[in-house]
Amino acid sequence: MLNGITIVKPEEIEKRSMEIITAELGGRTWPEEEALVVKRCIHTAADFDYADNLVFSEGAVKLAKEAVMAGASIVTDTSMAAAGINKKALARWGGRVHCFMADESVAAEAKEKGVTRASICMERGAGIPGPVIFAVGNAPTALIRLYEMIREGTVHPALIIGVPVGFVNVVESKELILTAPVPYIVARGRKGGSNIAAAICNGILYQCGR
Amino acid sequence: MLNGITIVKPEEIEKRSMEIITAELGGRTWPEEEALVVKRCIHTAADFDYADNLVFSEGAVKLAKEAVMAGASIVTDTSMAAAGINKKALARWGGRVHCFMADESVAAEAKEKGVTRASICMERGAGIPGPVIFAVGNAPTALIRLYEMIREGTVHPALIIGVPVGFVNVVESKELILTAPVPYIVARGRKGGSNIAAAICNGILYQCGR
Repeated sequence: MLNGITIVKPEEIEKRSMEIITAELGGRTWPEEEALVVKRCIHTAADFDYADNLVFSEGAVKLAKEAVMAGASIVTDTSMAAAGINKKALARWGGRVHCFMADESVAAEAKEKGVTRASICMERGAGIPGPVIFAVGNAPTALIRLYEMIREGTVHPALIIGVPVGFVNVVESKELILTAPVPYIVARGRKGGSNIAAAICNGILYQCGR
Repeated sequence: MLNGITIVKPEEIEKRSMEIITAELGGRTWPEEEALVVKRCIHTAADFDYADNLVFSEGAVKLAKEAVMAGASIVTDTSMAAAGINKKALARWGGRVHCFMADESVAAEAKEKGVTRASICMERGAGIPGPVIFAVGNAPTALIRLYEMIREGTVHPALIIGVPVGFVNVVESKELILTAPVPYIVARGRKGGSNIAAAICNGILYQCGR
Protein backbone atom coordinates (compact mmCIF):
# COMPACT_ATOMS: atom_id res chain seq x y z
CA MET A 1 0.00 0.00 0.00
CA LEU A 2 0.91 3.64 -0.37
CA ASN A 3 3.45 5.03 2.09
CA GLY A 4 3.35 1.86 4.18
CA ILE A 5 -0.32 2.30 4.96
CA THR A 6 -2.30 -0.89 5.56
CA ILE A 7 -5.98 -0.26 5.09
CA VAL A 8 -7.95 -1.11 8.20
CA LYS A 9 -11.67 -1.83 8.02
CA PRO A 10 -13.74 1.09 9.34
CA GLU A 11 -15.30 -1.07 12.05
CA GLU A 12 -11.84 -2.06 13.29
CA ILE A 13 -10.37 1.45 13.33
CA GLU A 14 -12.25 2.50 16.43
CA LYS A 15 -11.36 -0.70 18.25
CA ARG A 16 -7.66 -0.29 17.47
CA SER A 17 -7.77 3.39 18.36
CA MET A 18 -9.28 2.64 21.75
CA GLU A 19 -6.58 0.00 22.36
CA ILE A 20 -3.88 2.56 21.55
CA ILE A 21 -5.51 5.14 23.82
CA THR A 22 -5.82 2.62 26.66
CA ALA A 23 -2.18 1.62 26.27
CA GLU A 24 -0.97 5.22 26.26
CA LEU A 25 -3.03 6.04 29.33
CA GLY A 26 -0.78 3.58 31.13
CA GLY A 27 -2.22 2.44 34.41
CA ARG A 28 -4.79 5.24 34.66
CA THR A 29 -8.28 4.03 35.43
CA TRP A 30 -11.76 5.39 35.90
CA PRO A 31 -15.04 3.68 36.72
CA GLU A 32 -16.03 1.86 33.50
CA GLU A 33 -18.90 4.22 32.61
CA GLU A 34 -16.68 7.28 32.91
CA ALA A 35 -13.72 5.64 31.17
CA LEU A 36 -15.79 5.17 28.02
CA VAL A 37 -16.57 8.89 27.97
CA VAL A 38 -13.00 9.99 28.72
CA LYS A 39 -11.58 7.75 25.99
CA ARG A 40 -14.13 8.94 23.45
CA CYS A 41 -13.07 12.55 24.07
CA ILE A 42 -9.41 11.62 23.68
CA HIS A 43 -10.32 9.74 20.49
CA THR A 44 -12.22 12.73 19.09
CA ALA A 45 -9.43 15.27 19.54
CA ALA A 46 -6.35 13.02 19.78
CA ASP A 47 -5.73 15.01 22.93
CA PHE A 48 -4.82 13.29 26.18
CA ASP A 49 -5.51 16.46 28.15
CA TYR A 50 -9.07 15.16 28.45
CA ALA A 51 -7.76 12.48 30.78
CA ASP A 52 -6.97 15.28 33.22
CA ASN A 53 -9.57 17.96 32.63
CA LEU A 54 -12.85 16.03 32.64
CA VAL A 55 -14.77 16.22 35.90
CA PHE A 56 -17.82 14.05 36.58
CA SER A 57 -20.32 14.71 39.33
CA GLU A 58 -21.15 11.61 41.36
CA GLY A 59 -22.84 9.04 39.12
CA ALA A 60 -23.22 11.51 36.24
CA VAL A 61 -22.89 8.95 33.45
CA LYS A 62 -25.22 6.47 35.13
CA LEU A 63 -27.86 9.18 35.64
CA ALA A 64 -27.43 10.38 32.06
CA LYS A 65 -27.93 6.85 30.73
CA GLU A 66 -31.11 6.50 32.76
CA ALA A 67 -32.34 9.84 31.40
CA VAL A 68 -31.61 8.81 27.80
CA MET A 69 -33.38 5.49 28.27
CA ALA A 70 -36.34 7.42 29.71
CA GLY A 71 -36.53 9.42 26.46
CA ALA A 72 -34.41 12.47 27.27
CA SER A 73 -33.93 15.23 24.74
CA ILE A 74 -30.53 16.76 24.11
CA VAL A 75 -30.31 20.55 23.76
CA THR A 76 -27.09 21.94 22.35
CA ASP A 77 -25.77 25.41 21.59
CA THR A 78 -24.14 24.66 18.22
CA SER A 79 -25.23 23.15 14.94
CA MET A 80 -21.88 21.34 14.77
CA ALA A 81 -22.57 19.45 17.98
CA ALA A 82 -26.09 18.70 16.75
CA ALA A 83 -24.58 17.30 13.55
CA GLY A 84 -22.13 15.14 15.50
CA ILE A 85 -24.51 13.55 18.00
CA ASN A 86 -25.71 10.10 16.96
CA LYS A 87 -29.38 10.92 16.48
CA LYS A 88 -30.36 7.33 15.65
CA ALA A 89 -28.92 6.09 18.93
CA LEU A 90 -30.90 8.76 20.78
CA ALA A 91 -34.11 8.17 18.80
CA ARG A 92 -33.99 4.51 19.80
CA TRP A 93 -35.12 5.68 23.25
CA GLY A 94 -37.49 8.34 21.95
CA GLY A 95 -35.26 11.41 22.34
CA ARG A 96 -34.41 14.16 19.89
CA VAL A 97 -31.60 16.66 19.48
CA HIS A 98 -32.56 20.34 19.57
CA CYS A 99 -30.46 23.33 18.56
CA PHE A 100 -32.35 26.58 18.56
CA MET A 101 -29.40 28.81 17.64
CA ALA A 102 -30.48 29.44 14.04
CA ASP A 103 -34.13 30.20 14.89
CA GLU A 104 -35.10 33.72 13.88
CA SER A 105 -37.35 34.08 16.91
CA VAL A 106 -34.36 33.30 19.16
CA ALA A 107 -32.28 36.01 17.50
CA ALA A 108 -35.16 38.49 17.86
CA GLU A 109 -35.74 37.70 21.53
CA ALA A 110 -32.02 37.87 22.32
CA LYS A 111 -31.76 41.26 20.65
CA GLU A 112 -34.82 42.58 22.45
CA LYS A 113 -33.56 41.41 25.85
CA GLY A 114 -29.93 42.35 25.22
CA VAL A 115 -28.70 38.83 25.98
CA THR A 116 -26.99 36.17 23.88
CA ARG A 117 -28.84 33.79 21.60
CA ALA A 118 -27.30 30.95 23.58
CA SER A 119 -29.05 32.09 26.79
CA ILE A 120 -32.40 32.19 25.02
CA CYS A 121 -31.70 28.72 23.61
CA MET A 122 -31.20 27.36 27.12
CA GLU A 123 -34.52 28.92 28.16
CA ARG A 124 -36.19 27.20 25.21
CA GLY A 125 -34.56 23.96 26.28
CA ALA A 126 -35.91 24.37 29.80
CA GLY A 127 -39.40 24.37 28.33
CA ILE A 128 -39.07 20.95 26.71
CA PRO A 129 -41.17 18.31 28.52
CA GLY A 130 -39.38 15.31 30.02
CA PRO A 131 -35.72 14.93 30.95
CA VAL A 132 -33.29 17.23 29.14
CA ILE A 133 -29.52 16.94 28.72
CA PHE A 134 -27.86 20.28 27.98
CA ALA A 135 -24.71 19.92 25.88
CA VAL A 136 -22.83 23.22 25.73
CA GLY A 137 -19.81 23.23 23.43
CA ASN A 138 -19.46 26.88 22.66
CA ALA A 139 -21.14 29.58 24.73
CA PRO A 140 -20.13 30.40 28.30
CA THR A 141 -23.33 32.47 28.52
CA ALA A 142 -25.35 29.28 28.02
CA LEU A 143 -23.76 27.80 31.14
CA ILE A 144 -24.24 31.03 33.08
CA ARG A 145 -27.94 31.14 32.14
CA LEU A 146 -28.36 27.48 33.10
CA TYR A 147 -26.77 28.20 36.48
CA GLU A 148 -29.13 31.12 37.06
CA MET A 149 -32.17 29.05 36.10
CA ILE A 150 -31.09 26.19 38.37
CA ARG A 151 -30.94 28.67 41.24
CA GLU A 152 -34.32 30.10 40.27
CA GLY A 153 -35.69 26.55 40.12
CA THR A 154 -36.83 27.01 36.52
CA VAL A 155 -34.74 24.21 35.07
CA HIS A 156 -33.84 20.75 36.36
CA PRO A 157 -31.27 19.36 33.90
CA ALA A 158 -30.85 15.61 33.71
CA LEU A 159 -27.21 16.44 32.90
CA ILE A 160 -25.16 19.46 31.95
CA ILE A 161 -22.29 18.77 29.58
CA GLY A 162 -20.22 21.89 30.15
CA VAL A 163 -17.47 21.97 27.56
CA PRO A 164 -17.31 25.38 25.89
CA VAL A 165 -13.89 26.13 24.42
CA GLY A 166 -12.00 29.37 24.45
CA PHE A 167 -10.31 32.24 26.15
CA VAL A 168 -12.97 34.63 27.47
CA ASN A 169 -15.25 33.63 30.39
CA VAL A 170 -14.92 29.95 29.46
CA VAL A 171 -12.95 28.79 32.49
CA GLU A 172 -15.15 30.79 34.87
CA SER A 173 -18.45 29.56 33.44
CA LYS A 174 -17.32 25.96 33.79
CA GLU A 175 -16.23 26.48 37.40
CA LEU A 176 -19.71 27.84 38.08
CA ILE A 177 -21.33 24.61 36.88
CA LEU A 178 -19.05 22.63 39.19
CA THR A 179 -20.89 24.31 42.08
CA ALA A 180 -24.38 23.52 40.75
CA PRO A 181 -26.46 20.84 42.49
CA VAL A 182 -27.15 18.92 39.26
CA PRO A 183 -25.41 16.10 37.39
CA TYR A 184 -22.59 17.46 35.22
CA ILE A 185 -19.66 16.50 33.06
CA VAL A 186 -17.30 19.45 32.69
CA ALA A 187 -13.98 19.89 30.89
CA ARG A 188 -12.12 22.24 33.23
CA GLY A 189 -9.92 24.87 31.67
CA ARG A 190 -10.02 26.33 28.19
CA LYS A 191 -10.47 23.19 26.15
CA GLY A 192 -13.68 21.65 24.84
CA GLY A 193 -15.81 22.42 21.82
CA SER A 194 -18.68 21.14 19.74
CA ASN A 195 -16.75 17.99 18.87
CA ILE A 196 -16.19 17.23 22.57
CA ALA A 197 -19.83 17.97 23.40
CA ALA A 198 -20.91 15.50 20.72
CA ALA A 199 -18.30 12.94 21.82
CA ILE A 200 -19.58 13.01 25.39
CA CYS A 201 -23.18 12.60 24.21
CA ASN A 202 -22.16 9.68 22.01
CA GLY A 203 -20.03 8.17 24.77
CA ILE A 204 -23.19 8.08 26.89
CA LEU A 205 -25.52 6.94 24.09
CA TYR A 206 -23.30 3.99 23.12
CA GLN A 207 -23.52 2.67 26.68
CA CYS A 208 -27.31 2.74 26.86
CA GLY A 209 -29.01 -0.62 27.00
CA ARG A 210 -25.79 -2.37 27.94
CA MET B 1 -21.75 39.36 38.03
CA LEU B 2 -21.70 35.68 38.95
CA ASN B 3 -18.36 34.22 39.93
CA GLY B 4 -16.52 37.36 38.86
CA ILE B 5 -17.62 36.98 35.26
CA THR B 6 -17.98 40.20 33.30
CA ILE B 7 -20.20 39.68 30.30
CA VAL B 8 -18.41 40.54 27.08
CA LYS B 9 -20.37 41.35 23.92
CA PRO B 10 -20.28 38.46 21.45
CA GLU B 11 -18.62 40.62 18.80
CA GLU B 12 -15.82 41.50 21.22
CA ILE B 13 -15.16 37.98 22.44
CA GLU B 14 -13.40 36.91 19.26
CA LYS B 15 -11.30 40.07 19.21
CA ARG B 16 -10.19 39.58 22.83
CA SER B 17 -9.57 35.89 22.24
CA MET B 18 -7.31 36.63 19.30
CA GLU B 19 -5.40 39.19 21.38
CA ILE B 20 -4.85 36.59 24.10
CA ILE B 21 -3.71 34.01 21.54
CA THR B 22 -1.33 36.50 19.91
CA ALA B 23 0.12 37.43 23.31
CA GLU B 24 0.60 33.79 24.33
CA LEU B 25 2.26 32.98 21.01
CA GLY B 26 5.00 35.37 22.15
CA GLY B 27 7.21 36.47 19.30
CA ARG B 28 6.10 33.74 16.90
CA THR B 29 5.10 35.04 13.50
CA TRP B 30 3.77 33.75 10.22
CA PRO B 31 2.95 35.52 6.97
CA GLU B 32 -0.32 37.39 7.67
CA GLU B 33 -2.54 35.11 5.57
CA GLU B 34 -1.25 32.01 7.33
CA ALA B 35 -1.31 33.60 10.79
CA LEU B 36 -5.06 34.16 10.52
CA VAL B 37 -5.56 30.46 9.81
CA VAL B 38 -3.20 29.27 12.55
CA LYS B 39 -4.84 31.52 15.14
CA ARG B 40 -8.33 30.42 14.14
CA CYS B 41 -7.35 26.78 14.71
CA ILE B 42 -5.88 27.62 18.12
CA HIS B 43 -9.07 29.57 18.90
CA THR B 44 -11.29 26.64 17.87
CA ALA B 45 -9.61 24.04 20.07
CA ALA B 46 -7.85 26.21 22.67
CA ASP B 47 -4.84 24.16 21.65
CA PHE B 48 -1.52 25.82 20.90
CA ASP B 49 -0.20 22.63 19.28
CA TYR B 50 -1.65 24.01 16.04
CA ALA B 51 1.10 26.64 16.10
CA ASP B 52 3.53 23.78 15.55
CA ASN B 53 1.71 21.17 13.53
CA LEU B 54 0.16 23.17 10.69
CA VAL B 55 2.07 22.98 7.42
CA PHE B 56 1.22 25.22 4.46
CA SER B 57 2.39 24.57 0.92
CA GLU B 58 3.85 27.66 -0.76
CA GLY B 59 1.11 30.31 -1.09
CA ALA B 60 -1.64 27.88 -0.06
CA VAL B 61 -3.87 30.47 1.61
CA LYS B 62 -3.47 32.98 -1.22
CA LEU B 63 -4.36 30.32 -3.79
CA ALA B 64 -7.32 29.16 -1.70
CA LYS B 65 -8.65 32.71 -1.43
CA GLU B 66 -8.39 33.11 -5.20
CA ALA B 67 -10.26 29.83 -5.65
CA VAL B 68 -13.04 30.89 -3.26
CA MET B 69 -13.40 34.24 -5.00
CA ALA B 70 -13.63 32.35 -8.30
CA GLY B 71 -16.61 30.41 -6.91
CA ALA B 72 -14.93 27.30 -5.48
CA SER B 73 -16.98 24.56 -3.87
CA ILE B 74 -15.90 22.96 -0.61
CA VAL B 75 -16.19 19.18 -0.30
CA THR B 76 -15.89 17.72 3.17
CA ASP B 77 -15.99 14.24 4.65
CA THR B 78 -18.12 14.99 7.71
CA SER B 79 -21.48 16.58 8.39
CA MET B 80 -19.96 18.31 11.43
CA ALA B 81 -17.44 20.18 9.29
CA ALA B 82 -20.21 21.02 6.81
CA ALA B 83 -22.24 22.42 9.72
CA GLY B 84 -19.30 24.51 10.92
CA ILE B 85 -18.24 26.12 7.65
CA ASN B 86 -19.66 29.61 7.16
CA LYS B 87 -21.88 28.89 4.18
CA LYS B 88 -23.01 32.51 3.78
CA ALA B 89 -19.41 33.66 3.45
CA LEU B 90 -18.82 31.01 0.78
CA ALA B 91 -22.09 31.70 -1.06
CA ARG B 92 -21.09 35.35 -1.39
CA TRP B 93 -18.65 34.15 -4.07
CA GLY B 94 -20.98 31.57 -5.55
CA GLY B 95 -19.61 28.45 -3.83
CA ARG B 96 -21.42 25.71 -1.92
CA VAL B 97 -20.47 23.15 0.71
CA HIS B 98 -20.95 19.50 -0.22
CA CYS B 99 -20.87 16.49 2.06
CA PHE B 100 -21.86 13.26 0.37
CA MET B 101 -21.28 10.98 3.36
CA ALA B 102 -24.96 10.43 4.15
CA ASP B 103 -26.01 9.75 0.52
CA GLU B 104 -27.45 6.28 0.15
CA SER B 105 -25.90 5.92 -3.30
CA VAL B 106 -22.47 6.60 -1.78
CA ALA B 107 -22.98 3.86 0.82
CA ALA B 108 -24.12 1.45 -1.90
CA GLU B 109 -21.17 2.19 -4.19
CA ALA B 110 -18.68 1.93 -1.32
CA LYS B 111 -20.08 -1.45 -0.33
CA GLU B 112 -20.04 -2.72 -3.90
CA LYS B 113 -16.43 -1.63 -4.46
CA GLY B 114 -15.24 -2.64 -0.98
CA VAL B 115 -13.90 0.84 -0.22
CA THR B 116 -14.84 3.50 2.33
CA ARG B 117 -17.67 5.95 1.86
CA ALA B 118 -15.11 8.72 2.27
CA SER B 119 -13.20 7.57 -0.83
CA ILE B 120 -16.36 7.58 -2.91
CA CYS B 121 -17.18 11.05 -1.56
CA MET B 122 -13.84 12.34 -2.81
CA GLU B 123 -14.59 10.84 -6.24
CA ARG B 124 -17.93 12.64 -6.25
CA GLY B 125 -16.14 15.84 -5.30
CA ALA B 126 -13.72 15.41 -8.18
CA GLY B 127 -16.71 15.50 -10.54
CA ILE B 128 -17.88 18.94 -9.41
CA PRO B 129 -17.26 21.61 -12.07
CA GLY B 130 -15.00 24.54 -11.22
CA PRO B 131 -12.41 24.82 -8.45
CA VAL B 132 -12.86 22.49 -5.48
CA ILE B 133 -11.38 22.70 -1.98
CA PHE B 134 -11.32 19.33 -0.21
CA ALA B 135 -11.59 19.65 3.57
CA VAL B 136 -10.88 16.31 5.24
CA GLY B 137 -11.42 16.26 8.99
CA ASN B 138 -12.02 12.61 9.63
CA ALA B 139 -11.09 9.93 7.12
CA PRO B 140 -7.50 9.03 6.25
CA THR B 141 -8.90 7.04 3.31
CA ALA B 142 -10.25 10.28 1.84
CA LEU B 143 -6.71 11.68 1.73
CA ILE B 144 -5.33 8.43 0.32
CA ARG B 145 -7.95 8.41 -2.47
CA LEU B 146 -7.23 12.07 -3.25
CA TYR B 147 -3.53 11.27 -3.49
CA GLU B 148 -4.24 8.40 -5.89
CA MET B 149 -6.52 10.56 -8.03
CA ILE B 150 -3.94 13.36 -8.16
CA ARG B 151 -1.41 10.84 -9.47
CA GLU B 152 -3.93 9.50 -11.98
CA GLY B 153 -4.65 13.09 -13.07
CA THR B 154 -8.35 12.69 -12.30
CA VAL B 155 -8.55 15.46 -9.73
CA HIS B 156 -6.91 18.88 -9.50
CA PRO B 157 -7.76 20.25 -6.05
CA ALA B 158 -7.66 24.00 -5.55
CA LEU B 159 -6.61 23.09 -1.99
CA ILE B 160 -6.49 20.04 0.23
CA ILE B 161 -7.16 20.69 3.89
CA GLY B 162 -5.72 17.51 5.39
CA VAL B 163 -6.66 17.40 9.05
CA PRO B 164 -8.11 14.00 9.95
CA VAL B 165 -7.76 13.21 13.64
CA GLY B 166 -6.88 9.92 15.23
CA PHE B 167 -4.64 7.01 15.86
CA VAL B 168 -4.84 4.67 12.87
CA ASN B 169 -3.36 5.69 9.47
CA VAL B 170 -3.94 9.35 10.26
CA VAL B 171 -0.31 10.44 10.50
CA GLU B 172 0.67 8.44 7.40
CA SER B 173 -2.17 9.77 5.24
CA LYS B 174 -1.24 13.33 6.09
CA GLU B 175 2.43 12.75 5.29
CA LEU B 176 1.31 11.45 1.89
CA ILE B 177 -0.44 14.73 1.10
CA LEU B 178 2.73 16.63 2.00
CA THR B 179 4.32 14.95 -1.04
CA ALA B 180 1.47 15.82 -3.42
CA PRO B 181 2.04 18.55 -6.04
CA VAL B 182 -1.07 20.52 -5.05
CA PRO B 183 -1.80 23.32 -2.58
CA TYR B 184 -2.35 21.95 0.91
CA ILE B 185 -2.80 22.86 4.54
CA VAL B 186 -2.02 19.86 6.74
CA ALA B 187 -1.99 19.36 10.52
CA ARG B 188 0.91 16.93 10.97
CA GLY B 189 0.53 14.28 13.61
CA ARG B 190 -2.58 12.86 15.18
CA LYS B 191 -4.50 16.04 15.82
CA GLY B 192 -7.16 17.68 13.69
CA GLY B 193 -10.87 17.00 13.27
CA SER B 194 -14.06 18.37 11.81
CA ASN B 195 -13.81 21.48 13.96
CA ILE B 196 -10.30 22.19 12.67
CA ALA B 197 -11.34 21.52 9.05
CA ALA B 198 -14.16 24.05 9.46
CA ALA B 199 -11.87 26.53 11.24
CA ILE B 200 -9.37 26.44 8.38
CA CYS B 201 -12.16 26.95 5.82
CA ASN B 202 -13.51 29.89 7.81
CA GLY B 203 -10.03 31.30 8.33
CA ILE B 204 -9.71 31.43 4.55
CA LEU B 205 -13.26 32.67 3.90
CA TYR B 206 -12.98 35.57 6.35
CA GLN B 207 -9.94 36.85 4.43
CA CYS B 208 -11.62 36.86 1.04
CA GLY B 209 -12.25 40.25 -0.48
CA ARG B 210 -9.84 41.93 1.91
